[in-house]
Amino acid sequence: MASAPASGEDSLIARYFRPIATDPGAFNLDDDAAAIKPSGDDIVVTTDAIVEGVHFLPDDPPDTIARKALRVNLSDLAAKGAVAAGFVLTLALRNTEEAWLKPFAAALGEDAAQFGCPLLGGDTVSTPGPLMISVTAFGRVPAGKMVHRSGARPGDRVLVTGTIGDAALGLAVLGGGKVHAAVNDIAIRNLLIGRYRVPQPRTALAAVVREHASAAMDVSDGLAGDLTKLCGVSGVSAAIDVQSIPLSDAARDLLSSGIVDIETLIAGGDDYEILCTVAEDRVDTFVQAAQRAGIAVSSIGTVVGGTAAPKFLDGQGNEIVLKRHSYSHF
Amino acid sequence: MASAPASGEDSLIARYFRPIATDPGAFNLDDDAAAIKPSGDDIVVTTDAIVEGVHFLPDDPPDTIARKALRVNLSDLAAKGAVAAGFVLTLALRNTEEAWLKPFAAALGEDAAQFGCPLLGGDTVSTPGPLMISVTAFGRVPAGKMVHRSGARPGDRVLVTGTIGDAALGLAVLGGGKVHAAVNDIAIRNLLIGRYRVPQPRTALAAVVREHASAAMDVSDGLAGDLTKLCGVSGVSAAIDVQSIPLSDAARDLLSSGIVDIETLIAGGDDYEILCTVAEDRVDTFVQAAQRAGIAVSSIGTVVGGTAAPKFLDGQGNEIVLKRHSYSHF
Repeated sequence: MASAPASGEDSLIARYFRPIATDPGAFNLDDDAAAIKPSGDDIVVTTDAIVEGVHFLPDDPPDTIARKALRVNLSDLAAKGAVAAGFVLTLALRNTEEAWLKPFAAALGEDAAQFGCPLLGGDTVSTPGPLMISVTAFGRVPAGKMVHRSGARPGDRVLVTGTIGDAALGLAVLGGGKVHAAVNDIAIRNLLIGRYRVPQPRTALAAVVREHASAAMDVSDGLAGDLTKLCGVSGVSAAIDVQSIPLSDAARDLLSSGIVDIETLIAGGDDYEILCTVAEDRVDTFVQAAQRAGIAVSSIGTVVGGTAAPKFLDGQGNEIVLKRHSYSHF
Repeated sequence: MASAPASGEDSLIARYFRPIATDPGAFNLDDDAAAIKPSGDDIVVTTDAIVEGVHFLPDDPPDTIARKALRVNLSDLAAKGAVAAGFVLTLALRNTEEAWLKPFAAALGEDAAQFGCPLLGGDTVSTPGPLMISVTAFGRVPAGKMVHRSGARPGDRVLVTGTIGDAALGLAVLGGGKVHAAVNDIAIRNLLIGRYRVPQPRTALAAVVREHASAAMDVSDGLAGDLTKLCGVSGVSAAIDVQSIPLSDAARDLLSSGIVDIETLIAGGDDYEILCTVAEDRVDTFVQAAQRAGIAVSSIGTVVGGTAAPKFLDGQGNEIVLKRHSYSHF
């Protein structure tokens, strides 16, 4: 397009995004659409947007914003048992500063390569408001094998990957209040902030979830609320042993010293761990397969009958009543 | 989920969007992802967002905003020769007023049904900024048959559907300036405003485009600029006879009375007509097939060799120099 007048949007795409859109189905980003080749698999589609001031902070580094935008979607695909196949991106920008766009696109390209999820296309629009990045990601599962929220059955164990609550603590550190004051160690601060800014999608667990989980979802809005949703759709309830919920050392210290309560950790959101239910006789196999995949898994309770909200029980078996279960936009 | 505490977002989805998400692949909108069944076809993916104050006006009716959000994507699918298969939606909202959401969702459901493009999933987020609706739409084409921008060859005719410039005039009417003052007839005002607010995607032409067009795209940012893009990617130029560009009676009147110039019409955007190139020996077949599909098509010029920007020629064959070719976000 050397002699054709390129619009600002076109030159922005050419400069920052074409270099990372190397998949043949992206058509070099100079068409109106992308193409995904048929493979006989079902195409799993998920879409998640992140908004400045809501899902990330105005002064978060652009590379972390790019990674978060893609990874929250990769987390969904993993929880559904799907292998990533590509994504499209809608970027609502106030301006086109190179200092922001260059590291944003570079990090997006790195993550796309690392997770085998190529950029296929997108749309860039101007907005006078907050930055917003909307990603629609595609994955593949053998026909009919997507793992749903709805398959939990009484007697299944409730499992969760990694640790819960660190991202909420990272946000609290960035907020500058009592958590910030209590966490003096710079390495621990950065670890918690990193959990908030850059989720670690459990993509290595997708095949294990697909093979063994009766129901699964990723924890994005808080463990308590997300488990409530999973149980609701499955038509079951659950009894959770709060002492079994996996916590980082940092989270455990803040909890035991009374700086935060358990609700901060299990209703805080942004964990991007996988929450799933597994039939009792498959739990050992699941845990071993997860270990081989390098992902820690904890058993935190049991699915029970009924339609009550899940119960969170302390060490004495008494219910801990939560004032809120999860983050809600409205 | 009767006894489980539903978040605001969940109840919003249940109330407004679940009733219109009737496709089995939507899983009743209570999962994290949708599934598209394999058919052996390529899945064509397009994504386009509309932003309040940029693509629609703050006081546009919510039903027209919903239709525009979906239809700008259906227009892309049609131009690529694809048959619609479904869409996902990201909705960034300031609040959840029923007076806005109810007609928005109802119109979205009507269009989804009318165009055979079911709602498969989505994400709803809060924003303190302008409303934004991002749609990713899916279509099917036989493997390898997506129509690209890049196939135009010297000697091909340049064709365009419908009429050009009405949407830009509609926006001008809403803007209240000299166009508003010049258009006194309420029916004509409403016709032009309707062209701006509710595009008419040329879905009935998808199969004809797929069979006969050498290159195609939809006209969203202005005929002049979009043709420039198509020629650029194809490595060709074009000679356009401006007098052949199809105009509505309203546009012709405003042009002949000097209220607007040709640039307003052909660089204005929001037409959502199909612009395509067709080999000379297929033009008659194309036009006849378009007529059978009920869609008017006009031949407006010829593809020529070279990499210069397309030339727009008046009745005497003199070039009309355009100061701008299209809308650009940046």
